[in-house]
Amino acid sequence: MPTFRAEQLLDIGRRIFVAAGAPDDEAQLVSEFLVKANLVGHDSHGIIRVIQYVNDIEKGLIKPGAKIEVTRETRSSAILNGNWGFGQVIAKRAMELAIRKAKDGAVGVVCAFNCNHIGRLADYTLMALKNDMIGVAMVNSTRFVAPFGGRERMLSTGPISFAFPSDLEFPLVIDISTSVVAEGKVRVMLHRGEKIPYGWIIDKDGNPSDNPKDLYNGGAILPLGGDEAGHKGFGLGLAVEILSGILSGAGCAYEEAKRGNGVFFEVINIEDFMPIEEFKCKVGDLIRTIKASKPRPGWKEITIPGEPEYLTERIRLREGIYIPERTWDEIKQIASKLGVGDIP
Amino acid sequence: MPTFRAEQLLDIGRRIFVAAGAPDDEAQLVSEFLVKANLVGHDSHGIIRVIQYVNDIEKGLIKPGAKIEVTRETRSSAILNGNWGFGQVIAKRAMELAIRKAKDGAVGVVCAFNCNHIGRLADYTLMALKNDMIGVAMVNSTRFVAPFGGRERMLSTGPISFAFPSDLEFPLVIDISTSVVAEGKVRVMLHRGEKIPYGWIIDKDGNPSDNPKDLYNGGAILPLGGDEAGHKGFGLGLAVEILSGILSGAGCAYEEAKRGNGVFFEVINIEDFMPIEEFKCKVGDLIRTIKASKPRPGWKEITIPGEPEYLTERIRLREGIYIPERTWDEIKQIASKLGVGDIP
Repeated sequence: MPTFRAEQLLDIGRRIFVAAGAPDDEAQLVSEFLVKANLVGHDSHGIIRVIQYVNDIEKGLIKPGAKIEVTRETRSSAILNGNWGFGQVIAKRAMELAIRKAKDGAVGVVCAFNCNHIGRLADYTLMALKNDMIGVAMVNSTRFVAPFGGRERMLSTGPISFAFPSDLEFPLVIDISTSVVAEGKVRVMLHRGEKIPYGWIIDKDGNPSDNPKDLYNGGAILPLGGDEAGHKGFGLGLAVEILSGILSGAGCAYEEAKRGNGVFFEVINIEDFMPIEEFKCKVGDLIRTIKASKPRPGWKEITIPGEPEYLTERIRLREGIYIPERTWDEIKQIASKLGVGDIP
Repeated sequence: MPTFRAEQLLDIGRRIFVAAGAPDDEAQLVSEFLVKANLVGHDSHGIIRVIQYVNDIEKGLIKPGAKIEVTRETRSSAILNGNWGFGQVIAKRAMELAIRKAKDGAVGVVCAFNCNHIGRLADYTLMALKNDMIGVAMVNSTRFVAPFGGRERMLSTGPISFAFPSDLEFPLVIDISTSVVAEGKVRVMLHRGEKIPYGWIIDKDGNPSDNPKDLYNGGAILPLGGDEAGHKGFGLGLAVEILSGILSGAGCAYEEAKRGNGVFFEVINIEDFMPIEEFKCKVGDLIRTIKASKPRPGWKEITIPGEPEYLTERIRLREGIYIPERTWDEIKQIASKLGVGDIP
């Protein structure tokens, strides 16, 4: 059972990307983002993506070293053309710019288009948090989600992330899709050969299904809220689609040509509203009060967004990151093909 | 069955507020907001509120004519102290300021505290829409919602609204609570003596309940997403609580002293991102494509956020607004007590 220290994975990822043609700094940065995902427990966004990214480089879908252009800019806003470089490289640049604009004038909004998969949104909103600012992020991708009452895929799973500075031990970061589940969760159940709960997806005829295969056979994921309140998830999904797909210029999920992520980032500089220490303490008080409140029967405790990732990271920094045999074999094959030696 | 034209209700509401001590312009404005809610079908936020508002004026909770102060301001942001005037008056001022700031520099964020109930969020995001801008609004109020896995009320129902300009016939406006239902819906079912679906609320011991009484007997509303995805509604509710309750300085729902609405408004000026006509057309195309897609079995069509209100308004402008006998009697009593004559 191959288990690795984070630094080992980071080094291997970096060397593979360099061998695939990426500049040193980009290879380092993308590998860092991937290993960070492993550390916090989101293995689907982790080092396994090396396989896909190297493929995408070979196909010309990812263009390492692509120049990022600012196509439109005001003192509080900007739009970036990523020219199909690594999504992480483009998104990091977009968030840095939004932080700078917010520092300069309370709030900054930066969108990006021609941008590959950027990974976990929390990685970027956490950048704002580390600068004592509020980070907001949304992206759209390709279509997977039916509108409320509809049977056809029209929207992407439309994730939203918020990160808020606080005096808590762990970072308070929300990172959720506006569909009932992220697509990756359905895929995991498919690979395991397990059923999924009713309420996650519909089949191609619009009927409820507990078979993950039905999603990939013309079905769709349902919007957050289910039969009772699915209009809410649908509304949020529309907002994400419009802000990250239309305002950015990236295009909508329903369009045939759509690929990659449309990006909407926003940063709010707390110091322009109240002293940062007061804000951090009040957010901390809110969370401590909730954490100390009574759980429902059958629940051990109330989990706060960002808490599970923090706890997982502490364990994995200590005990290492487990990579499934099959995934590791594929990574080794790619490394060997690219002439990257010394892989454990 | 008393049915009224909108102008009649508007005039009656205005005269009652003036008699209760409100300046002419505030009386007109608040009455307009209330009647607009009736017109679009949200009667719980309509003229019925005259009763509560006059009571609140008498108790000194609403202070008509209160001076609104800007306590903090940058070129892109501001915080308003509403000094407990009418919520609608404060919120309209806040949105006007956010629009001005966005016109001036791509994006504006304006918060407000010491602010009474502001009514429907859509009223304010629609102000941005009418200015060819994107409107975003969130408010917190008193506590009604349990955290995911918790049994105690910790958050407010935390509504969010987005309005997006488009070339559609109706305004595209999303206005949803981040709980499974708004509190008003549970109250309506209580008054009707009907059961509610399981999944809306828990009783004081944290057990699922279909009895609306249990909410008012120490129970709580559940966050959007239910047992499967309630962490998402909880996360969104936290974001609303922090932005509208903490960043505004209004205080959190869990605090004993909390009353009124904490307000977070944001406006994005589309012209700083792309030509407004292009944006409107792309949003229209998205909605038209969704509207033309196939509904699920048992559904007649796909309803778009903002559409039902638009259709109801067209009917009620033509056919008038029905007010229940009992509500109308109470309004007449208040009018008579305040010496407002000529009530139909």
